[in-house]
Amino acid sequence: VTIELVGFDADDTLWHNEDAFREVEHRFVELITPHALPGVDVADGLSATERANLSVYGYGVKAFGLSMIEAALTLTEGTVPGVVLDELLHLTRDLLEAPVRLLPNVADVLQQVAEQHRLVLITKGDLIHQTRKVTTSGLAHHFELVEVVNEKDPETYEAIIQRLQVKPEQFCMVGNSVKSDVLPVLAIGGNAVHVPYPMTWALEHAEPGHFTFAELESITELPAWLASQ
Amino acid sequence: VTIELVGFDADDTLWHNEDAFREVEHRFVELITPHALPGVDVADGLSATERANLSVYGYGVKAFGLSMIEAALTLTEGTVPGVVLDELLHLTRDLLEAPVRLLPNVADVLQQVAEQHRLVLITKGDLIHQTRKVTTSGLAHHFELVEVVNEKDPETYEAIIQRLQVKPEQFCMVGNSVKSDVLPVLAIGGNAVHVPYPMTWALEHAEPGHFTFAELESITELPAWLASQ
Repeated sequence: VTIELVGFDADDTLWHNEDAFREVEHRFVELITPHALPGVDVADGLSATERANLSVYGYGVKAFGLSMIEAALTLTEGTVPGVVLDELLHLTRDLLEAPVRLLPNVADVLQQVAEQHRLVLITKGDLIHQTRKVTTSGLAHHFELVEVVNEKDPETYEAIIQRLQVKPEQFCMVGNSVKSDVLPVLAIGGNAVHVPYPMTWALEHAEPGHFTFAELESITELPAWLASQ
Repeated sequence: VTIELVGFDADDTLWHNEDAFREVEHRFVELITPHALPGVDVADGLSATERANLSVYGYGVKAFGLSMIEAALTLTEGTVPGVVLDELLHLTRDLLEAPVRLLPNVADVLQQVAEQHRLVLITKGDLIHQTRKVTTSGLAHHFELVEVVNEKDPETYEAIIQRLQVKPEQFCMVGNSVKSDVLPVLAIGGNAVHVPYPMTWALEHAEPGHFTFAELESITELPAWLASQ
């Protein structure tokens, strides 16, 4: 069986993402700590707020921005100054407007992979933000379909490959998250390649369990790996 | 030519939406006015903030929530109390979690239309929120495809009907917004039916220009109208 369709995750697979969130989280702690109740763990409070809001807010920057405002109010018992909240809104907007920073060799790798395969982009997050990133990246033309999804679960992957009329064994997903890009694809009988990013969001941590899958040090190795299948 | 594919808008076409936003806007004015600078038009300030953020935030409740927080800070020069901001966050969350309130006869109409046509749902807004509404409505099974889009422009409609392999003249869009559901569909040579909702969001106002199109008083009239084409 040869792989016909290659799925790419976007954030932290094609371009940097998590590092910018980390910087904003760091700034959040700096801004809120002077106003926080004594003994409060500000970073933990933000992370718990994000987790609690996930099922209603979904993924992405706007959800993160709303969670920051909420956590700022909670952790300071409502005493956070207006100028601090203003800065949190600006940080949110900056995340949404930041130019795409491609990871090394991504453009070249997509070009190579596209010569032999059909390509699809599958990403969680804000619809408008993810669309903006893929169009401004100049990479959109490589993808037959760009799917922004609520969750990367087996049903989601199944629906996408069914729509593109390939069998699971003809599909290979490439991404930085074992939880979102690898395990659900293996679960439906597909192939998956893990390309780790130096940092992983707390909510994306996963145990690989009994599954085995390919792990590449860099996306640069992907064309050779696909050729060897 | 017979109509093969019928597209439905969601908010204010299948279920109530704008009335809930209006209620929250009304509450926003009540909450902010006592803290606002003298002579400031609070409702106008919110609406202008939404408009200014549209290209970055997109449509939907999370965008609205972030704009409310921003407008609250701006209109009060940062003096808005924490408890008020807290309530704005709660109002935002309530909008996201509110049960779907179907418009009269919608379930029956979809059932009837589905007997003779393929159905697609095309809506702007938050990906997670629109998905939640269509799945909890119990109507999802009628639709071959549910598309949450950034903008309802001619290109968007063209891409959808191309994907579903129908010609523009075989497609008919049904919705409450002349700007989003009617004019762009007529522009690509498709058919459109306007079913007005009692209120229209300021950002959806449009001049029909030189186009003529069908206008139904209620979606209940749709099956008969389609049969007459």
